[in-house]
Amino acid sequence: MTWTRHHVLGLADWTTEEYDTLLKTASSFREVLSSRTKKVPALQGVVVTNMFFEPSTRTRSSFELAAKRLSADILNFAPGTSSLSKGETILDTAKTYLAMGTNIMVIRHKQAGVPQAIAAEMDRLQTGVSILNGGDGQHEHPSQGLLDLFTLCCLLDSDNPQIKLLKGKKIVIVGDIVHSRVARSNIWSLMAAGADVHLVGPPTLLPEWFKSMKNESNSGQLFLDWHLKPALENADFIMTLRLQKERMTDYLLPSLREYHQQYGITHTRLKLCNSNVKILHPGPVNRGVEISSELMDDPNFSLIQQQVTSGIAVRMALLFLMGTSS
Amino acid sequence: MTWTRHHVLGLADWTTEEYDTLLKTASSFREVLSSRTKKVPALQGVVVTNMFFEPSTRTRSSFELAAKRLSADILNFAPGTSSLSKGETILDTAKTYLAMGTNIMVIRHKQAGVPQAIAAEMDRLQTGVSILNGGDGQHEHPSQGLLDLFTLCCLLDSDNPQIKLLKGKKIVIVGDIVHSRVARSNIWSLMAAGADVHLVGPPTLLPEWFKSMKNESNSGQLFLDWHLKPALENADFIMTLRLQKERMTDYLLPSLREYHQQYGITHTRLKLCNSNVKILHPGPVNRGVEISSELMDDPNFSLIQQQVTSGIAVRMALLFLMGTSS
Amino acid sequence: MTWTRHHVLGLADWTTEEYDTLLKTASSFREVLSSRTKKVPALQGVVVTNMFFEPSTRTRSSFELAAKRLSADILNFAPGTSSLSKGETILDTAKTYLAMGTNIMVIRHKQAGVPQAIAAEMDRLQTGVSILNGGDGQHEHPSQGLLDLFTLCCLLDSDNPQIKLLKGKKIVIVGDIVHSRVARSNIWSLMAAGADVHLVGPPTLLPEWFKSMKNESNSGQLFLDWHLKPALENADFIMTLRLQKERMTDYLLPSLREYHQQYGITHTRLKLCNSNVKILHPGPVNRGVEISSELMDDPNFSLIQQQVTSGIAVRMALLFLMGTSS
Repeated sequence: MTWTRHHVLGLADWTTEEYDTLLKTASSFREVLSSRTKKVPALQGVVVTNMFFEPSTRTRSSFELAAKRLSADILNFAPGTSSLSKGETILDTAKTYLAMGTNIMVIRHKQAGVPQAIAAEMDRLQTGVSILNGGDGQHEHPSQGLLDLFTLCCLLDSDNPQIKLLKGKKIVIVGDIVHSRVARSNIWSLMAAGADVHLVGPPTLLPEWFKSMKNESNSGQLFLDWHLKPALENADFIMTLRLQKERMTDYLLPSLREYHQQYGITHTRLKLCNSNVKILHPGPVNRGVEISSELMDDPNFSLIQQQVTSGIAVRMALLFLMGTSS
Repeated sequence: MTWTRHHVLGLADWTTEEYDTLLKTASSFREVLSSRTKKVPALQGVVVTNMFFEPSTRTRSSFELAAKRLSADILNFAPGTSSLSKGETILDTAKTYLAMGTNIMVIRHKQAGVPQAIAAEMDRLQTGVSILNGGDGQHEHPSQGLLDLFTLCCLLDSDNPQIKLLKGKKIVIVGDIVHSRVARSNIWSLMAAGADVHLVGPPTLLPEWFKSMKNESNSGQLFLDWHLKPALENADFIMTLRLQKERMTDYLLPSLREYHQQYGITHTRLKLCNSNVKILHPGPVNRGVEISSELMDDPNFSLIQQQVTSGIAVRMALLFLMGTSS
Repeated sequence: MTWTRHHVLGLADWTTEEYDTLLKTASSFREVLSSRTKKVPALQGVVVTNMFFEPSTRTRSSFELAAKRLSADILNFAPGTSSLSKGETILDTAKTYLAMGTNIMVIRHKQAGVPQAIAAEMDRLQTGVSILNGGDGQHEHPSQGLLDLFTLCCLLDSDNPQIKLLKGKKIVIVGDIVHSRVARSNIWSLMAAGADVHLVGPPTLLPEWFKSMKNESNSGQLFLDWHLKPALENADFIMTLRLQKERMTDYLLPSLREYHQQYGITHTRLKLCNSNVKILHPGPVNRGVEISSELMDDPNFSLIQQQVTSGIAVRMALLFLMGTSS
């Protein structure tokens, strides 16, 4: 079980071995988190800098707690009060944090490609710094994709979560696919697992070219559907995506109510699925839009809390593997 | 000395035993704070999340330092950059931090009842999470009430602060009573101590129904006065309250100058009081409004700095009792 | 090697012995930073409060990491959400953080003299609290001046950085001298080192009275020039200053392009200098204004990254000397 990946920028090119190493490592950290002190000295002396150019409380807190559990030091870069407003380039900001001693940068930016550009610069300068994509534009959100994967695999075999457990499972991803970095990361990991992935959404949010999203090494199948009903039949898992209200002012959606009527997940609609079906959502949820409020609170179906909990263990695993491999 | 209270939402129903346990615990932490390392491993592995929906530097810093002194991990939720602006409900935000592993939530909100609602939800879900009210609307601010109590009791007997020390003391609370959560928490604790509590303020800020604020178990007396002079006679302690400038645009006050003339505390007015009289203020102070600037800087009378210092020990005690009892 | 300076408010009155003690201490912390754990328990139990009334990410992060490396506890005061907007005076805010147990305050304010005023009040109250000026108006920015000094001296003798190494060196400070606190701190330290300091800038940004900036104990020479070319001849070091874009709306500069044409540092202009010439900049840099973009990325000439790295060791040294001397 060796780890050679220096940056984590996306899941498009992950191998089965990498997924399984990540799942196994996250699994061991899940045990640390259930111990009394909840902390390991694994990354003592390592500096993790959260560079969230796009504001976020949820993901930043998750990375912060994960880093603390590993005994790393954490710096938080706050875009509002930063040098960026003073005309500094993003690469220069990154190099400043590099010069302070940063070992791992977690980068979120509303524009796709920013983490890649910083990673390239760090490599060119032979700095040894690792870049973790914390969500870039509409490109990828790999730590979310991995925590979703960990949540599903743990449900199927808590003691031994492995990617092959999802082989042949029918997994429906519903909603605003085209704008979603979460959807893209999920598609890569689920396809690699050999799952049957069904994308569902209105044509304005699910263009046909998604059909071509495929890797050679992927054993899973990808299907597109503009209607929810056929996709739900015998589904094992439903991944709902956050619907941003701006989509309506962009004329991509008629109304939230109409969206819920056509694509919202409810107890009634779940009857079409496999009886053990579970629902995921990356949060924050618009109750009554992506999922009915009643369903969201139903612990028999919702995995939303488990996803957040998995996030700590998975981010510990990512930081640990990146921080100890180089 | 056992502690069974899971949440601290207000002081209205505290027993004498609870007050004394809190005072004794805070007293022992005051000793920790005077040691060289100032830290105890009591809450190692415990996650304290500051959820301050209403911005605050002072109280948040106090809780943050208290948690650090107990070796807890702290997460800070920043409302400005949060999921709330993305449409998430407050209960869902709280559940997200629960899922990350939070054990104690310190909650401040401009609306009364928010900490209670979150506590009820946490209990319903059998989470074991403890809620500490960091100030909710005009309802209560229990940690401020307790640090005021600790400050007073320590003054009377530094080695053995107990609530009965305040029995029969004349304590005047002056100012904007009706809008003050601090006043309400103070009234409950001082009445429980058996003090004679005199509320003073203009009729617009001190409605008559405050007379009915009484618990069965309270042995103290409550008095209302719209004039300062009679209340000050032989007073032992004067608690001043912050006057918010918005009150004037609400037509509740003619001017700050006139307020100071009628209700401001000055050296001259102190001559009416007991010669050992001391003054408190929860801060931040408008100098020259609630208290004259000269008096505020007079260490013979002002307990304002001691209140802030007490805050750390009292908040350590609260976090410790809540974090180790469940 | 003893340290008796309680506050660090500026470099105007530093002695050679103090500079050398600081450089030697920073040098030893540079070794700590290259060790595996990167941490020493030197300031365990000490509370460092960052009071940045003027927003800053770079300097605040540097102080924060320095404090963490010394095992101190850090409180961050955020002006945006603070009591200041509620009418509290700056001195009262400082006294609140004092009462919470702060030992060292790092203060940045857009108005010159604020750190001095707080230091005077802390002394008057015999608090023992140390004040470190994190940059006040156009007065001084001592930690920046010291990290620049440390960067230069380490370049000349990495094992034994001493101030006398700069004796007789020709050092050019270019740009907006009159508004720069960094320039003033640099002038004091470089003059004390016995360097020949050449100030260069347009007359609107470099008034003639700068000639009189001299201390009795300074052995260095101070020169003023409104043209860059003569100053660059045989220069050993060039310190560029950040140009704030507001200067143009103040009618002090015609345009950024014209500024770069007259005072911007480029590869071509470096040919006038000593062949080993190096360039510094306190950051954040406006690429293509103070320095050409190509030159900024040329590791043969730029010391900008080393300055940031030096910042951690120098700030550790300052906090350590101030925190253990009193």
